Amino acid sequence: MATVLKGAEVTAALNANLKTEVEILKQRGIHPTLGIIRVGERPDDLSYEKGACKRAETIGVAVKKILLPEDASQEELLEVVERVNQDDQIHGVLLFRPLPKQMDDEIIRAALSPEKDIDGITDGSLMGVFADTQKGFPPCTAEACIQILNHFGIDPKGKKAVVLGRSLVIGKPVAMMLLKKNATVTICHTRTAEIPAECREADILIAAAGRAGVISSEFVKPGQVIIDVGINFVDGKLKGDVDFDVVEPIVEAVTPVPGGVGTVTTSVLIGHVIEAAKRTI
Amino acid sequence: MATVLKGAEVTAALNANLKTEVEILKQRGIHPTLGIIRVGERPDDLSYEKGACKRAETIGVAVKKILLPEDASQEELLEVVERVNQDDQIHGVLLFRPLPKQMDDEIIRAALSPEKDIDGITDGSLMGVFADTQKGFPPCTAEACIQILNHFGIDPKGKKAVVLGRSLVIGKPVAMMLLKKNATVTICHTRTAEIPAECREADILIAAAGRAGVISSEFVKPGQVIIDVGINFVDGKLKGDVDFDVVEPIVEAVTPVPGGVGTVTTSVLIGHVIEAAKRTI
Repeated sequence: MATVLKGAEVTAALNANLKTEVEILKQRGIHPTLGIIRVGERPDDLSYEKGACKRAETIGVAVKKILLPEDASQEELLEVVERVNQDDQIHGVLLFRPLPKQMDDEIIRAALSPEKDIDGITDGSLMGVFADTQKGFPPCTAEACIQILNHFGIDPKGKKAVVLGRSLVIGKPVAMMLLKKNATVTICHTRTAEIPAECREADILIAAAGRAGVISSEFVKPGQVIIDVGINFVDGKLKGDVDFDVVEPIVEAVTPVPGGVGTVTTSVLIGHVIEAAKRTI
Repeated sequence: MATVLKGAEVTAALNANLKTEVEILKQRGIHPTLGIIRVGERPDDLSYEKGACKRAETIGVAVKKILLPEDASQEELLEVVERVNQDDQIHGVLLFRPLPKQMDDEIIRAALSPEKDIDGITDGSLMGVFADTQKGFPPCTAEACIQILNHFGIDPKGKKAVVLGRSLVIGKPVAMMLLKKNATVTICHTRTAEIPAECREADILIAAAGRAGVISSEFVKPGQVIIDVGINFVDGKLKGDVDFDVVEPIVEAVTPVPGGVGTVTTSVLIGHVIEAAKRTI
């Protein structure tokens, strides 16, 4: 029986700290504010937005929404981004992507100030992760993995961490963050010769393959910590990359899906707004 | 008996290609030019500069040197960098570092245009490596490792690559470049629990530990390809990270030091000047 690393416990601890930080900022006359820029009405975006707004409210962070129609032009969006960059009352920006096809993702990302980029989408933020500088913010999901390890007292130092996936949203940044924490980091991907064998070598396995239930018994061994980053919808139900029922009896600890990384990600996002507000002082 | 992966062979092939490219550019009225910015007279810098100038001459690339005294101010150096950024006749810039202590490395690096940053020192260049975009240029030593593998027909795809070292100059960028070539990449460092065992797992080992002769028999096994990035001076003699005499009889292939990565690095540097010139068209 593995320890189930419940996101709610991490979130409760993070939220308590963040509420205190908000209080301190408000005493100094600063009201941390999240700006949400959304183009169109994609159900995924609306769902994430709802969660973010609720979490912001819980923690005491204000939200300003700037909504554009699905057929808005790139120029309109650039104007919005520029206005938000200049707006001292908005500390961090959540910009939903993918953008509609009439917009160039790279141009839009380049327009956002790294200082307000709370989800690691700008080159400045990603460079901060790669070079370990204080620029911008890492992608929230990558940081959520680290926060879960922190909360449960799992120190990656000297341990073997295997990251399955090499995207810029999760695989590469979480690999760099684990490296910073002195783990020995292996990055696996679709071209890796023997993925199960590689995963079995891990002390800490970050599963970000993006395929429901792919991590099964042959990928794991006793003593491992498994962080499941997967968000896959199967028959309308949310499933992780880990086949939980099979893996849980074998390993030392595992995050559930739902109720694991996802819920922590939302608090990390709001935490970044607060940190961005602090950095303006 | 291992195949000795001689840098001279790689360099000869690279130089031949680069000479052709220079000829084509000259026919279009473009004379690829390397700008060298050097503050002071450090023997290491002078030695590298001499090699770079000679290689540039061999390939047909012009060199413009801008030299500042050891006690130059940061403002003077920034003026030079700005002037070089604006100068259409200089396509790529080699800026020697570390800089004297009166100068802020980060400020100087940020001042250089990534387009002219032929040695991967700007955030733009490093971001290009991390995110696999066409911005700037990777650090020359990291690319030299890849060029050696290319030249000798060693395809990292699906292979296990172990990188020993996690610096921004070599370890992290070469890890990203191997990942791009579809290797399964492990990054080891001083905090790695069992470095020899990790290295023995490699199909391709990039040794960038920065300690003379540290890679000995217990780090290697038959069938491996070893790229020695070490530049260590012991009793005035140049030594790699690999204990060559011990390792060479065991492995499949190994680069020598001297005569391995270093000589290729210089041609990669000049190649970047030519590529920077091509990108201006």
